[in-house]
Amino acid sequence: MLSNLLPILDWGRRYSRATLGADLMAALIVTIMLIPQSLAYALLAGMPPEAGLYASIVPIMLYAVFGTSNALAVGPVAVVSLMTAAAVGEVAASGTAGYAVAALTLAGLSGAMLLVLGLFRLGFVANFLSHPVIAGFITASGILIATSQLGPVLGVRTEGATLPALLSSLAAGMGSLSLLTLVIGAAATGFLYWVRKGMKPALRRAGLGPRAADVAVRAGPVLAVVVTTLLAWGFGLDRAGVAVVGHVPAALPPFTLPSFDPELIRQLLLPAALISIIGFVESVSVAQTLAAKKRERIRPDQELIGLGAANLGAAFTGGFPVTGGFARSVVNFDAGAATPAAGAFTAIGLAVAALFFTPYIYFLPKATLAATIIVAVLSLVDLGVLRRAWAYSRADFAAVAVTILATLLLGVEAGVSAGVALSVLLHLWKTSRPHVAEVGIVPGTRHFRNILRHEVQTDPAIVTLRVDESLYFANARFLEDYIMARVTGDANLRHVVLLCSAVNEVDMSALESLEAINTRLHAMGLTLHLSEVKGPVMDRLQRSSFLSALTGRVFLSQWDAVEALRAG
Amino acid sequence: MLSNLLPILDWGRRYSRATLGADLMAALIVTIMLIPQSLAYALLAGMPPEAGLYASIVPIMLYAVFGTSNALAVGPVAVVSLMTAAAVGEVAASGTAGYAVAALTLAGLSGAMLLVLGLFRLGFVANFLSHPVIAGFITASGILIATSQLGPVLGVRTEGATLPALLSSLAAGMGSLSLLTLVIGAAATGFLYWVRKGMKPALRRAGLGPRAADVAVRAGPVLAVVVTTLLAWGFGLDRAGVAVVGHVPAALPPFTLPSFDPELIRQLLLPAALISIIGFVESVSVAQTLAAKKRERIRPDQELIGLGAANLGAAFTGGFPVTGGFARSVVNFDAGAATPAAGAFTAIGLAVAALFFTPYIYFLPKATLAATIIVAVLSLVDLGVLRRAWAYSRADFAAVAVTILATLLLGVEAGVSAGVALSVLLHLWKTSRPHVAEVGIVPGTRHFRNILRHEVQTDPAIVTLRVDESLYFANARFLEDYIMARVTGDANLRHVVLLCSAVNEVDMSALESLEAINTRLHAMGLTLHLSEVKGPVMDRLQRSSFLSALTGRVFLSQWDAVEALRAG
Repeated sequence: MLSNLLPILDWGRRYSRATLGADLMAALIVTIMLIPQSLAYALLAGMPPEAGLYASIVPIMLYAVFGTSNALAVGPVAVVSLMTAAAVGEVAASGTAGYAVAALTLAGLSGAMLLVLGLFRLGFVANFLSHPVIAGFITASGILIATSQLGPVLGVRTEGATLPALLSSLAAGMGSLSLLTLVIGAAATGFLYWVRKGMKPALRRAGLGPRAADVAVRAGPVLAVVVTTLLAWGFGLDRAGVAVVGHVPAALPPFTLPSFDPELIRQLLLPAALISIIGFVESVSVAQTLAAKKRERIRPDQELIGLGAANLGAAFTGGFPVTGGFARSVVNFDAGAATPAAGAFTAIGLAVAALFFTPYIYFLPKATLAATIIVAVLSLVDLGVLRRAWAYSRADFAAVAVTILATLLLGVEAGVSAGVALSVLLHLWKTSRPHVAEVGIVPGTRHFRNILRHEVQTDPAIVTLRVDESLYFANARFLEDYIMARVTGDANLRHVVLLCSAVNEVDMSALESLEAINTRLHAMGLTLHLSEVKGPVMDRLQRSSFLSALTGRVFLSQWDAVEALRAG
Repeated sequence: MLSNLLPILDWGRRYSRATLGADLMAALIVTIMLIPQSLAYALLAGMPPEAGLYASIVPIMLYAVFGTSNALAVGPVAVVSLMTAAAVGEVAASGTAGYAVAALTLAGLSGAMLLVLGLFRLGFVANFLSHPVIAGFITASGILIATSQLGPVLGVRTEGATLPALLSSLAAGMGSLSLLTLVIGAAATGFLYWVRKGMKPALRRAGLGPRAADVAVRAGPVLAVVVTTLLAWGFGLDRAGVAVVGHVPAALPPFTLPSFDPELIRQLLLPAALISIIGFVESVSVAQTLAAKKRERIRPDQELIGLGAANLGAAFTGGFPVTGGFARSVVNFDAGAATPAAGAFTAIGLAVAALFFTPYIYFLPKATLAATIIVAVLSLVDLGVLRRAWAYSRADFAAVAVTILATLLLGVEAGVSAGVALSVLLHLWKTSRPHVAEVGIVPGTRHFRNILRHEVQTDPAIVTLRVDESLYFANARFLEDYIMARVTGDANLRHVVLLCSAVNEVDMSALESLEAINTRLHAMGLTLHLSEVKGPVMDRLQRSSFLSALTGRVFLSQWDAVEALRAG
């Protein structure tokens, strides 16, 4: 159905005047919030400030056409901007034309990947990112971003994509520290922190209604922008060493082309893949949480298409990689956004800002933008996840800790890669030693239970092993070793029965192991039997030569097996 | 216990005159077989021929001290020699001093890795290599090796580590083809092929006993070596364009040092890891099969130590990476080897050969050695695995096919890496969609069964979902999506129960998902309950804050859950 691929056809048909009002109100609030944020994240990504506005116009409109979430607000976000800076910084110097083209190319690649994943319904690749890896990565990214933004707040140039590099460039730049910048930056940071933590209770105590207080809190960053811009303009602070945003063209998003240079594309492939997946995971998690609050649903595979279209849009209109942002989506939702049209109206608001508002931000101090970023990302830093993971499981703790350390010390790509590799390794390790129980019969019944936990009867000529896991490559060899260890030296033994009631799958590696077990037991004069094999597993085995080589039999039930083998 | 780490202390104490006789006889036969093989595999690895003998002396002795298999014969093998040539060829030109040092370094790295894996009992990393990947890789390696050896048989220089490169260098060299070399090479190949396939039946028909026929078959390669060497010497074929082995020093293995250059080590890390794991997997599989025939056991973790010591030995005595070989171990076993001492005696035999025999192989045509390799590796090529995998499962077929194609087209490292990555991906994909059944009660019982397969009773206010898989990062999000899809739009629903009888683990990602499910259901006005949670899973959950946030309850049995929720 076409409306599956174009959700706008579905909600667009039911669009009413009431939804229009709600969407317009939400768009107004989100637009006010997004103007400083877009500028700030553009600088974080190493781009000119207007790129942040551009990355929030066409991408949002495309998401409104293809996305399934009514509340998700798409645009530049902190973590993806950091990843963009790290990836593009590897191939070009910030401020050059090559840098901007590389950022467009990164957005284009990311968009194409997301689109392909969505069209082929391959969203499951996001499953590679376990929660410990995401939590560790977000926390470490928050620390990296906050540290990098200390530079603009102090008026010091920072460089580097790892914590040691950032800290040493901060230390090296302390000589050229600008006191005036520091005053503005520290004041803005302190004010914004208070806006976040203390302003709402204060306004409520002063008698403001909860809704008005909410709006005031959201206007806080705009207030900081306006006040510091006026100060910089009034006192000519730009001539006193305070870095300001400077000339920003007043224009709609330009038409741009990403690069098709194969070498550049090769260099950006891995970062684009990581940006795509991290962006997708974060975005879907926000969208699902917000949808649930209204008993609505989003479709993750269609979300891939929506985000893919948004990133392709960014690539062709002077932007950089975007995704669904947490804070702005929550604001959008709380402000009453009813359909993706709210996003489209936000885009129009930002387009108006890009056309008419940019001359007024010439004097906006970069320190103010850095302050908005620092205060925003500090809420991402959650070192408590280390404690919770340690309490819950050592394996998960290892994944969190390695991801945090690798991200801080080696950079964002190495951090995610190390975390993913470790998670998969730990999972294979855990399932490579499945629980195997030797079972016997409970007297007077036909039930078989673990001989270590129950009073059961066994026959010295028969050993029955129940494997509590599907058999696949990670545990196939374990089973070989286990059975060989169990039967070696047991002189009375004649039959080995594998009770397969918990085996949902036998892959080809496990089949090979079963064949090896059969051959080796045969060489020892023992026969191998199976019992209670599930239907689908049996169908598979019948397509191999295993059953004809099997020295023993396949029994429908363990009871049948014991009856037959005792008699034999 | 020390004898765990030094198995020689165990079997050495029980050593008798009878075992000595058996071991000596086996050693004699294996030595005769190993002389041409060692020379040939050295050339395959790009090393001087004597390196093959050196790689078979000290490594075998060290394996005899640390290894647990009574029959495994350690030394240069075809696949590992190919991998060595591919890895070392990337960092140095064949025939240079740098090449030999890089090969020593590769052996040293591989030895150190195996030793560490063994000491820390990390043998499970070999589980990453699924059977389809190994089978595909061995087959593709056999094709690559046979193709590369067509060069010496035709008297043409071949270069390259991929099938297209090898074929194009063969085609380019056809102009300089040496007819005389081709005659010798083709005759030797034909003869050795007949030795393998037709000689034994012929000898048996001629009245020879089975044992004598076996020995004759094994002496076949030596006969080919002797005859072609005499021909080359008698007719001065080396002056007529037939490449011969040439001067080989008559000496015991020299003391050598691998390089400790960090850059070289970095370049060789991945190849060393792949060589270690592939060598280990092949070696353990042979050792286990042979041990089972005598109701003996090997210890895989100790095998890592044995193979690690052998490779370190190779690094310090002029060798290159080694592992347990299939053909020679079977010969060793069939010839009656009773303890690892048979290996030590083989080493002495090869040392004698290295000291006294090397002057006589000056005229040995390289084409003869290439012929022994071609005939040996053709038995590795098993394209039937593609058909068997296709019949068994599409996922396993994909893993085999991708491994074969990537190995042939991109080289050995890319082949193994692609195969491993695809296997893990396919596994995560398969387990990312676990079977989830909605269950109801079988009337008149307390049993709960799938509503799609059985006549059961359900309550419109309660939905019970049974998940037939442990919950971990790969399927955590699937469960979120599944539950949201199930409950959205069901207006009568009030309770969601997760029946956890088949859940053996809940990792932190799944915990996060359960928390998200709980929060989202709460936002929809639904309560989430768990039933039949296993003890270890419950212990874990109690260490998190999930149970205190849970909107519903945890029931001991599903029956309790339904009773309580119906009443409520």
